[in-house]
Amino acid sequence: MVVYLVGAGPGDPDLITVKGIKALKKADVVVYDRLANDEILDYTKNAELIYVGKKSGEHYKKQDEINQILVDQAKTHDVVVRLKGGDPFVFGRGGEEMLTLLENGIDVEFIPGVTSAIGVPTSAGLPVTHRGVATSLTVVTGHEDPTKPNKQVKWNFNSDTLVILMGVGLLKKNIKEIMKHKDPKTPVCVIENGTMSDQKIITGTLEDITNNDINTPAIVIVGQVVDVLKESLLKKAEING
Amino acid sequence: MVVYLVGAGPGDPDLITVKGIKALKKADVVVYDRLANDEILDYTKNAELIYVGKKSGEHYKKQDEINQILVDQAKTHDVVVRLKGGDPFVFGRGGEEMLTLLENGIDVEFIPGVTSAIGVPTSAGLPVTHRGVATSLTVVTGHEDPTKPNKQVKWNFNSDTLVILMGVGLLKKNIKEIMKHKDPKTPVCVIENGTMSDQKIITGTLEDITNNDINTPAIVIVGQVVDVLKESLLKKAEING
Repeated sequence: MVVYLVGAGPGDPDLITVKGIKALKKADVVVYDRLANDEILDYTKNAELIYVGKKSGEHYKKQDEINQILVDQAKTHDVVVRLKGGDPFVFGRGGEEMLTLLENGIDVEFIPGVTSAIGVPTSAGLPVTHRGVATSLTVVTGHEDPTKPNKQVKWNFNSDTLVILMGVGLLKKNIKEIMKHKDPKTPVCVIENGTMSDQKIITGTLEDITNNDINTPAIVIVGQVVDVLKESLLKKAEING
Repeated sequence: MVVYLVGAGPGDPDLITVKGIKALKKADVVVYDRLANDEILDYTKNAELIYVGKKSGEHYKKQDEINQILVDQAKTHDVVVRLKGGDPFVFGRGGEEMLTLLENGIDVEFIPGVTSAIGVPTSAGLPVTHRGVATSLTVVTGHEDPTKPNKQVKWNFNSDTLVILMGVGLLKKNIKEIMKHKDPKTPVCVIENGTMSDQKIITGTLEDITNNDINTPAIVIVGQVVDVLKESLLKKAEING
């Protein structure tokens, strides 16, 4: 018995890795979250499919329940794939699943995926690092309420580029925090449905980006690299008429 | 004419994406850097292969020359693939290549790859984020000499996990900088030849990690998440005898 923790990538089903596909092909069971595109499950061969994702912002299954499902499935099957969007260890709670499985004597293998934090801006032509502009990049969850006591995220990151995942719900509150540390004129970009055919790019600055209607799923990129994207979008428009 | 900027992933040739393979299959020319494994080039079909990578730490071709090669190849071929290790926009100078091509009226498409910054720790069982331990992650280049004037990297990142790419050569100097901002007892992990069969994991703390013999290519991870890796390695050893 073995569990493969597999990253499905940021949305476009062609952004899964060969190694991820190989694991899906030999899976007896696939335990999966909400994916941007369920086509990835077509790589399986007669595997049992167990959905444990979220429904409209709420957890469909609690993390403890998911951990228990993984343990139970691993004990009764040779190969279990735990499929997660993006990379399993970038805000995917893969670490908890790994530790629970190992504590239960079940071996775990890890297959990284293209994280949305980088794959979404890259696909759009936004370089998260750029010579002379950005030599560092911070990825953070936007899921924590900045007004709660004992908050973990302090928002005073001294990096050139900031990428916020799961950042739509609390965007106004979080941007207020970011503006304590960064110029309100700092460029911001929101990418909705990144890497998908209905991708939407919104640009602005810290002080005005939330004037737009922003819908989930989206990632938020803050920093001068957004100007490089704007330049590339302009030039691309010229080329493609 | 179009140039695909494609990420080859962190080393293991099975960590390229399906989308990357599709681009390689239709390429007339592939312009590629030093890859951890040249097997990825086998996906091409009669494409001309042009090597522009580094030789023993030095650039084999200067960036200007590479930009010119890309422009020249794009003008004389239908499909050019520019293949880079990791993701094309994570310290890959992909942004400069993109802008040069667009300025020359050549369209560019972007295919992300699994960046070493995340794919290497994930493959090793090191969760770069972990509930209650790390809600933020900074990726930085270790390539800049911290003693040079007008340095861009300041090392005072207030994030829970720090991942240093290209960090072996200047590791001692950079760790000295990091210790100005973080406890010398902070756990550190070095992963040499990540995702490859000769992968080597070294753990320690900021104050003692450089007592080890560390060889390139390696990535360096700083933060409490390293303790999660140690826990998982111990448990894995128990399970696998």
